[in-house]
Amino acid sequence: MKVTLNRAVFIQELATVQRAISSKTTIPILTGVKIDLKEKGLTMTGSNADISIETFLESDNEKAEMQIESTGAIVLQARFFSEIVRKLPETTFTMEVLENNQVAITSGKANFIVNGLDAENYPHLPIVERRNQLQLSVQMLKQLVTETVFAVSAHESRPILTGVHFVLENQKLLAVATDSHRLSQRIIPIEGETSDFNIVIPGKSLTELSRSLVDDEEEVEISIMENQVLFKTRNMLFYSRLLEGNYPDTNRLIPNSFNTEIEFSVPAFLAAIERASLLSHEGRNNIVRLSISEEQVMLYGNSPEIGKVEEALNYEKVAGEPIEISFNPDYMKAALHAFGDMSITIKFIAPIRPFTLEPTEGQGEFIQLITPVRTN
Amino acid sequence: MKVTLNRAVFIQELATVQRAISSKTTIPILTGVKIDLKEKGLTMTGSNADISIETFLESDNEKAEMQIESTGAIVLQARFFSEIVRKLPETTFTMEVLENNQVAITSGKANFIVNGLDAENYPHLPIVERRNQLQLSVQMLKQLVTETVFAVSAHESRPILTGVHFVLENQKLLAVATDSHRLSQRIIPIEGETSDFNIVIPGKSLTELSRSLVDDEEEVEISIMENQVLFKTRNMLFYSRLLEGNYPDTNRLIPNSFNTEIEFSVPAFLAAIERASLLSHEGRNNIVRLSISEEQVMLYGNSPEIGKVEEALNYEKVAGEPIEISFNPDYMKAALHAFGDMSITIKFIAPIRPFTLEPTEGQGEFIQLITPVRTN
Repeated sequence: MKVTLNRAVFIQELATVQRAISSKTTIPILTGVKIDLKEKGLTMTGSNADISIETFLESDNEKAEMQIESTGAIVLQARFFSEIVRKLPETTFTMEVLENNQVAITSGKANFIVNGLDAENYPHLPIVERRNQLQLSVQMLKQLVTETVFAVSAHESRPILTGVHFVLENQKLLAVATDSHRLSQRIIPIEGETSDFNIVIPGKSLTELSRSLVDDEEEVEISIMENQVLFKTRNMLFYSRLLEGNYPDTNRLIPNSFNTEIEFSVPAFLAAIERASLLSHEGRNNIVRLSISEEQVMLYGNSPEIGKVEEALNYEKVAGEPIEISFNPDYMKAALHAFGDMSITIKFIAPIRPFTLEPTEGQGEFIQLITPVRTN
Repeated sequence: MKVTLNRAVFIQELATVQRAISSKTTIPILTGVKIDLKEKGLTMTGSNADISIETFLESDNEKAEMQIESTGAIVLQARFFSEIVRKLPETTFTMEVLENNQVAITSGKANFIVNGLDAENYPHLPIVERRNQLQLSVQMLKQLVTETVFAVSAHESRPILTGVHFVLENQKLLAVATDSHRLSQRIIPIEGETSDFNIVIPGKSLTELSRSLVDDEEEVEISIMENQVLFKTRNMLFYSRLLEGNYPDTNRLIPNSFNTEIEFSVPAFLAAIERASLLSHEGRNNIVRLSISEEQVMLYGNSPEIGKVEEALNYEKVAGEPIEISFNPDYMKAALHAFGDMSITIKFIAPIRPFTLEPTEGQGEFIQLITPVRTN
């Protein structure tokens, strides 16, 4: 294998593959990136126990300035290889596999000789039998992830809750995540013929997937296998393992009748929550208290050591019975961040019952749930 | 005390004082910032075992929008106070000392009540008898610090080497730092009448000082006391303790006859050193090798596990005998960063003798020394 390439283009591809490469793995070859050069182009592969990423750089991609002298394959220690390529002096560089899996990397007057591993020993990625079960735009897929993944559980005590539950049925795709204290759910309509599915994808995989998808205009093909899911774009294959087990029935958790409703502008409410949480973070319980009465809407936070804060909140609309409710401001902050700059409606039943948050416009498609904290 | 202030201006002053405030101190009141409001303006003080900073915000500073209702003083826990002020909703805010050292902080509809401490219990800063022993521009003082402080020792085994040695005599100010492996020295001429001094200032103090000085056009008055030094600008007093003990005689370390000289452009040489050090960092010794012969100038780095690198270097001029010399590339990188974008001349005696680095233009004013590594 001998090839000359544009350095910046190569670095970008390598950075994508590196998302799947951990230096902590116990399988030495998985600290490497597999580089496979054919006449059609350059395939790179990175993998760990959870995800595998394969990128393809076409040889006729003009920006890549690819000049192939001979094809072949090698595995190179990913972290070093990446640092070396980043620090090379010229805009292009040359890789050449020498004897004994050694690789010469040259650019300008700089010559590196690094030790590689035989590409034959690199594990094979899973084979996908059924392709293209569902197609989504990158923009829609990233939105689904952003709106749900923050609510997965960080604890391994119930592994199934560390994933996002995706259910496709009746031409609707539902994504839901919960750590049992809060929940976030988005439903989107799906057009065309689809086969239903019901899977749980690890939250960490989805976060890496989201970071690897850069072009919002592109389409992603999603294919589901026995215990893997494949996300395929024009030049990338992204595999993730699935979580095994039954996801709890979250449908019955979402209430549908309420006694109090209030409408907030997200940025204004978020700023007030952040102020209140400054002090609640120091307290033993980390709670803030929201009080809705006929006269005013107040938010309270306190820490016995530092002090206390109270703020009369600006709101857009309020209806129903007065209520006093306490909750963890960190859950509220995460929920509000997922909405972004819009108006939301928060609906309450009682101080000890979960409350819901929805965009004021377009209710039902995106809903969040927060469990309050009982204070007496 | 009751005062209304522009939030952004206040935050900037507080950030300066906070450089001297550690949350790890064993003296609780020192986790606080002392706020002292008089008719003339607002003085804030922060202090730790090494440095103390006092800033002054004039009441007639228009940007401060200061409205004083009553004067007074209080100590507030610095970290929380700063976070609270940063998160307040309006452009101005009001502080009012209530009973029992409680302080109301209000802005818009947000009301904080925080617990303060009696300002009477805050330690007094040292009194400076002799003022204005030396005057330097902020720009010159920051340059002196940048060019020397990186070379102080990070180890407490020889505490005196953790400071920068400043000597004023014969109308010249010399600043020198060494960790016994490398040395960096700058000499600047001083005009006007001065009293000589010979002090060692902790490197950490100088780094904080440098960060606290923002306006390059300003002048700094330097006053030296028994075991303190005071840097005074128009609105800031910066005190640092001095290190006790005798600084080693570094003059005799700097050689003055050489056998090989080479001239490099700093950015090009630095890039090559960074490439070579990628591999040397993985080796047991972390050394790179520079080889100057009549035909070419080569740089080598290697790591038994990863591989090796060699590079023919671009240089501007070379003279004298061939030499092969090995050194720690981290010392070289730090030295080159201190020069910035210029041409430097490196002068060698022998492979086991320290070599010097100087700007090609203006030699003698700024000189660095690196001890090579013996490889056999």
